[in-house]
Amino acid sequence: MRTTTAASTDGMEGATSGATSDVLVVGGGIIGLVTAWRAAQRGMSTTVVDPAPGGGAARVAAGMLAAVTELHYGEETLLSLNLASAARYPSFAAELAEASGQEIGYRACGTLAVALDADDRAHLRELHALQRRCGLDPEWLTGRECRRLEPMLAPSVRGGLRVDGDHQADPRRLATALLVACERAGVRFARERVARLALATAADERVTGVVLDDGRELSAGQTVLATGAHGLDGAGLPPGVLPPVRPVKGQVLRLRVPPAYAPFLSRTVRAVVRGGHVYLVPRTNGELVIGATSEEMGWDTTVTAGGVYELLRDAHELVPGLTELPLTETCAGLRPGSPDNAPLLGPTRLAGLHLATGHYRNGVLLTPVTGDAMGELLATGELPEQARPFTPRRFTRRLQEQPA
Amino acid sequence: MRTTTAASTDGMEGATSGATSDVLVVGGGIIGLVTAWRAAQRGMSTTVVDPAPGGGAARVAAGMLAAVTELHYGEETLLSLNLASAARYPSFAAELAEASGQEIGYRACGTLAVALDADDRAHLRELHALQRRCGLDPEWLTGRECRRLEPMLAPSVRGGLRVDGDHQADPRRLATALLVACERAGVRFARERVARLALATAADERVTGVVLDDGRELSAGQTVLATGAHGLDGAGLPPGVLPPVRPVKGQVLRLRVPPAYAPFLSRTVRAVVRGGHVYLVPRTNGELVIGATSEEMGWDTTVTAGGVYELLRDAHELVPGLTELPLTETCAGLRPGSPDNAPLLGPTRLAGLHLATGHYRNGVLLTPVTGDAMGELLATGELPEQARPFTPRRFTRRLQEQPA
Repeated sequence: MRTTTAASTDGMEGATSGATSDVLVVGGGIIGLVTAWRAAQRGMSTTVVDPAPGGGAARVAAGMLAAVTELHYGEETLLSLNLASAARYPSFAAELAEASGQEIGYRACGTLAVALDADDRAHLRELHALQRRCGLDPEWLTGRECRRLEPMLAPSVRGGLRVDGDHQADPRRLATALLVACERAGVRFARERVARLALATAADERVTGVVLDDGRELSAGQTVLATGAHGLDGAGLPPGVLPPVRPVKGQVLRLRVPPAYAPFLSRTVRAVVRGGHVYLVPRTNGELVIGATSEEMGWDTTVTAGGVYELLRDAHELVPGLTELPLTETCAGLRPGSPDNAPLLGPTRLAGLHLATGHYRNGVLLTPVTGDAMGELLATGELPEQARPFTPRRFTRRLQEQPA
Repeated sequence: MRTTTAASTDGMEGATSGATSDVLVVGGGIIGLVTAWRAAQRGMSTTVVDPAPGGGAARVAAGMLAAVTELHYGEETLLSLNLASAARYPSFAAELAEASGQEIGYRACGTLAVALDADDRAHLRELHALQRRCGLDPEWLTGRECRRLEPMLAPSVRGGLRVDGDHQADPRRLATALLVACERAGVRFARERVARLALATAADERVTGVVLDDGRELSAGQTVLATGAHGLDGAGLPPGVLPPVRPVKGQVLRLRVPPAYAPFLSRTVRAVVRGGHVYLVPRTNGELVIGATSEEMGWDTTVTAGGVYELLRDAHELVPGLTELPLTETCAGLRPGSPDNAPLLGPTRLAGLHLATGHYRNGVLLTPVTGDAMGELLATGELPEQARPFTPRRFTRRLQEQPA
């Protein structure tokens, strides 16, 4: 897999040859930026292509680092990666702050997951049982104990799980810090739109970079797709190469806690209300993020009356006192959902093309290990052990194993 | 009362003398602008003082012209003014469009006021009875008849009143058109903050204009306070001169009806839900305005989580299909509420000082007759017959009649 030489542009008729890099990262969200930063740190000439780097789903996300509270049946493999990345966060945040001069709002505040009615409590009990089977043991609290920790909780809270290891970071500050770290590490930015991948078919089939909207080509030895929920035109590519990622829309609110109400909440509070997840993430700067809807609507980032209504209704049920707080922002983003809810990290069937996408609900959490894994892959051609279960080839294999 | 000569600036020690006008209007909202426009049309040199003319509550208001549906017990006198202004609207809109080159979104769509539960129906029946006693007779409709008119209404709607004469205008376009009409009529704008009224006490006590924040004075023969819910420093003024107006906060949402959903609603739809008023005002350009909370919070224009939640909850109960509509804006404004909910139009106890404020929920509706009344007053010294019940002196008299 290793490709350290610049790819040839043979067969790229009509394309104006642009700059050549060792590594070309398509997509300047937090996953693309951490990949580019790590590549540049290892001495590779690196370019990020994105019309607006630092954007993407991180502008919307709440930034929960919820390895334990986001555990679902059948995702035990993902749990180990999530836990590894959660453990990496303190040193990652410190290294990034050192490299960029920017704090990313990492806050070791823990999480309280609560139940409002009997159904919720049954749901939370099941999660607790699953967590224990996975070797975790968050503490079960009565409703009264929950309110002692967080006095703003509704009297109707019937119990909860205290998860002291699920912390938070501020995704907007994370994106900004990664941008600065990339710039300082020498990463170049091409603020352009990508039309398609550039493919050389002379000898063996190989991706040689990208073709921009204006027809110019950027070539690279290795190309990383970090396009999140956004796809690329697959024209000319074999089936199964582009990531099987779908957009899962999330609407998010931002409130402000005036000093008179502070701290309001002292940790992340979350619940399942009538089947929907709602969470409240309090930052030290007074921002309170409420998320998130989960909607399969295609590439739609409209803030809707219904989305905002459901979030406010559920949050109000959980923490009635928030009615007095200023509502400062509503926004919507797209989670890159993969078929098994786990990321796609590593090489594809096409030489020269890697993926770093499909992080679904865990993009902020998985930023440190994604950077580690992609840096290692780009420099050595091998994924580190912990990332290997997440190779995109797991879907290609399934595709090939299916009867015709 | 008539004062056509420029006031002296005697006694204004330390103030730099600024420009002198026949008429100085303090406040450049729709009421101040229509007053200035009418004064300028009658040949008086006119200045509007406002740091941001065209702003104020009209930037927030939905623009219902709800003479009949907003009828309340004890407000029969106000009803006649409201009906007179509603009747003036078509010619007013046409004249303003001619003068400014701008349409104001006047739409003769009518209103449907509906009831959701038994309490609401009783409330609406009482309103209907009151309307009939006042010589109005809107048609009572069954729930089915309501849904035939507006198919998006909830199945739970139990009945309603069809009020074909309560139309709408777009307050933002109204403010813009009035600004242009003022400019074209030669009104001058002083984009400054007013510190206080300028008072000459040499011979008789008389208002001679205003002192700006920076100490400069703008003098005028007649000064009109059209400051809406915003007060002035009353230092040096006798008691009972400044308007007894309080701010009543209203939070409002703006949604967008995509073409695929149009027309969605074909007229204004309103209801009382759990004691709170909610209304949906559909514009021809696809904007759907949902209002409004009514909060006595002082000079606070914060959009709160609770305000937005209640509006969405109530609107959703009335028209469930709006969940899919984009939510494009949330904002809050201040209605100028007077003790009897009616405007204060005309001279005060102080020579040279008039009021045009206290329009509460009816500012957009009352814009035409307010312009007529203030123009007449400024030019002739006399209020027209229909405006006389609304002189500010009605409160001064009460003040003087109270036992000490």
